[in-house]
Amino acid sequence: MPMTSASYAITMRLYVQPDDQHAVGLITTAIGDAGGTVTAVDWVSTKDRHVTLDLTVHARGSDHASLLRDEVDHLEGVEVHRVSDRTFLTHLRGKLRVESRVPLKTRDDLSMAYTPGVARVCLALVDKPQDARSLTIKGNTVAIVTDGTAVLGLGDIGPTASLPVMEGKAALFKEFADIDAWPVALDTTDVDEIVSIVKAMAPVYGGINLEDISAPRCFEIEERLRDELDIPVFHDDQHGTAIVVLAALTNALRLVGKDIADISVTMVGAGAAGVAIAKLLLAQGVVDLRVADRHGLIAPGSEQPDSGKRWLAASTNPNGVTGSLVDGLDGADVFIGVSGPDLFDAAELARMADDAIVFALANPQPEVDPLEARAHAAVVATGRSDYPNQINNVLAFPGVFRGALDARATAITEEMKVAAALAIASVVKEDELHPYHIIPSVFDSEVVPAVAAAIRDVVRRNETAAPAPSIAVDDGDDLR
Amino acid sequence: MPMTSASYAITMRLYVQPDDQHAVGLITTAIGDAGGTVTAVDWVSTKDRHVTLDLTVHARGSDHASLLRDEVDHLEGVEVHRVSDRTFLTHLRGKLRVESRVPLKTRDDLSMAYTPGVARVCLALVDKPQDARSLTIKGNTVAIVTDGTAVLGLGDIGPTASLPVMEGKAALFKEFADIDAWPVALDTTDVDEIVSIVKAMAPVYGGINLEDISAPRCFEIEERLRDELDIPVFHDDQHGTAIVVLAALTNALRLVGKDIADISVTMVGAGAAGVAIAKLLLAQGVVDLRVADRHGLIAPGSEQPDSGKRWLAASTNPNGVTGSLVDGLDGADVFIGVSGPDLFDAAELARMADDAIVFALANPQPEVDPLEARAHAAVVATGRSDYPNQINNVLAFPGVFRGALDARATAITEEMKVAAALAIASVVKEDELHPYHIIPSVFDSEVVPAVAAAIRDVVRRNETAAPAPSIAVDDGDDLR
Repeated sequence: MPMTSASYAITMRLYVQPDDQHAVGLITTAIGDAGGTVTAVDWVSTKDRHVTLDLTVHARGSDHASLLRDEVDHLEGVEVHRVSDRTFLTHLRGKLRVESRVPLKTRDDLSMAYTPGVARVCLALVDKPQDARSLTIKGNTVAIVTDGTAVLGLGDIGPTASLPVMEGKAALFKEFADIDAWPVALDTTDVDEIVSIVKAMAPVYGGINLEDISAPRCFEIEERLRDELDIPVFHDDQHGTAIVVLAALTNALRLVGKDIADISVTMVGAGAAGVAIAKLLLAQGVVDLRVADRHGLIAPGSEQPDSGKRWLAASTNPNGVTGSLVDGLDGADVFIGVSGPDLFDAAELARMADDAIVFALANPQPEVDPLEARAHAAVVATGRSDYPNQINNVLAFPGVFRGALDARATAITEEMKVAAALAIASVVKEDELHPYHIIPSVFDSEVVPAVAAAIRDVVRRNETAAPAPSIAVDDGDDLR
Repeated sequence: MPMTSASYAITMRLYVQPDDQHAVGLITTAIGDAGGTVTAVDWVSTKDRHVTLDLTVHARGSDHASLLRDEVDHLEGVEVHRVSDRTFLTHLRGKLRVESRVPLKTRDDLSMAYTPGVARVCLALVDKPQDARSLTIKGNTVAIVTDGTAVLGLGDIGPTASLPVMEGKAALFKEFADIDAWPVALDTTDVDEIVSIVKAMAPVYGGINLEDISAPRCFEIEERLRDELDIPVFHDDQHGTAIVVLAALTNALRLVGKDIADISVTMVGAGAAGVAIAKLLLAQGVVDLRVADRHGLIAPGSEQPDSGKRWLAASTNPNGVTGSLVDGLDGADVFIGVSGPDLFDAAELARMADDAIVFALANPQPEVDPLEARAHAAVVATGRSDYPNQINNVLAFPGVFRGALDARATAITEEMKVAAALAIASVVKEDELHPYHIIPSVFDSEVVPAVAAAIRDVVRRNETAAPAPSIAVDDGDDLR
């Protein structure tokens, strides 16, 4: 049974008879008996011969919320006047706003920020385009580009319905890394058109975060944009996930005392995330990696329908193991699931090697029951926030882009991704490592600075930064 | 000689000998003698055997600013340590930022604004796409779309160099109308590509403001987007200018007691603004309108190179007047210039009818000297802020889009433009009308509400709003 959650929080406005001194007790008892969680009771007013209360409750889902409402409404002397859904209230008017960074209250303000003064800044940019990183928003701005074809677990819901996710992502960029991110939700699924649109709009941005674009189209879109643009292009569903998986794996291996070069890894899921994880694991020294899709383990040299799976067939499974995913578990040190819900029974994990590591990342329902998995594995991680060891992209993308923007990176390389993963892993100190704590919390304030510093170091070491502006942004700190 | 301006404001950090009690007096005298304006003297510190002062000065231009610096540096006991250009300081880091409208501090916040709660909002939008106006940023968001081909008076400077103007425009949208506007500066000048890009990105926006796109391409881009999108598309250089010209003309005619149906109008400039002004004047009842381009007056039925000029040849100059622009001034009641600097001598205005009205809008240098024009005209207006009667688009576009977003308008019609112009004109009350005050100040807080209300009225009257969301944005005001 799922837990109650803030994502299903409702607030009921109640009219209660004032002479009933036990009403609040009866109400909270009724909610508790029906499996809800009362999180707030706010007394609104006493008038018109009734007391008005706002009762906020966490439910398990939409049907459960309706049930809780009915339970309260049936109580003697209590009337549910209206019900508000707090998640929908959170979304009213959208989740982003654009603010001016400059005052525009006086004629002098206008003369400097707009005409006629702005013309001098424009001419300076004609002369030195690299100054766009200090004299315009480009230096701190990331586009979140989607076509709405692979949104969360919802699939192809289109650009309009994807917008709440893109806005949320932009809000996370701001909250965690002080980056100005903007949603670009495109009403086209044509690869050529998406590539040409992103190229055309790139002057405004210091980086491109591709989001929720379905495989295999996402591979070609990213590859072509990386070739043609001089700013970082990063498909978060691929590389964000891969970075955090490598971070978690690094610490899990430290805990069980195994070397990454020696382990046998079985993964299920050959989409965007699976391919990127495979590439990063090989880059970091994994040799024995086999990947299953819905047809079973991908055999070396087998015919495959798209570029991602062709790469897997060419580059993984050196021992040529065939059969089902479950067959692939035999003797494996690590299982990684980036696929769908409830693929096999936890008892099958007994096939794995001692001190097995299980990352079951399908959301909201993991590939294998994570509670039962603990009986057979030394370390278990999921994508969910209500189990220990949440593998969450929020640990990676804010710091990756913060570092890339700071360093004027022109691309996100495999070396940077490995550096980011090791930086995330390093936030969990040796004496903090525990089977329930291989990865830092998304709210750990050390994560983003550590990741950003790691990215900056790689750019500096390889001297791959874009040209420095002639006017530095900190020229203004001294004299304003 | 141009006036000193905040757009050429510099701040000099000065080291001054502390034993010189007259230093500040000498400095300000030297600036004044050299034609500069001291606007601030800030005492920064006293240490290291000198006093540090920040001296802020308005100059007439870049060369003049250098001269002022040298004058101060040559003073005995005064050293200019560094010079900062305040306009460039204003632009450091760009002029916009994106902020989250929702808290993201706790796990509950994340659960509602991002996963898993956001999935419910996405599914609601699959079901009812019209709710995007209340549950996403679409309801209050405008794209400022340019290709950088006709930026201010600077011409084709490209998307990167145009960005400070687009950011400034977005800042004005926020300051004057609380609209979240975002720059879309495109690295393409291909009409088909611009049209397809704007169509593809439209799901995020409630309106499209086209900006600084050169004629005649701007006509086709706007027309095709208006046909294909269900949100307002408004080329501000055309229609913003036309609205404010009609507003100013309405009040100028009131002042001189002439009827718009009876006047003779001569205009110079057959680009984006000229064509739009002509259309709006005809819509509002002007009959005798003739338009000149660089080749002279456009004759009825003459061969013309683009759609805008072809329309002018087909629709204006009913009396078939031919010759130069100056020939066209004979007997005209109104002159409107939306072209280039210094086209003719003010004495030529004597050819016009009594109580002539002269709008010389070329910026920064008007078509005719506005001070000398006053000798021959009852009313003179320019595009500049340092003369009376500034005809500035800031009077129109914030209120037009505010009203259009509020009313869920699907287009900006000629009827709306006329209503907006009359609303701007109405802000100057009968007893405030004066040859130096035919148009409200851009800082007049009555303008935007009046324009927005006029736009809303037109939408309501014609019942042309987009479908109403099932969840209104003010559903949240009551219970949160």
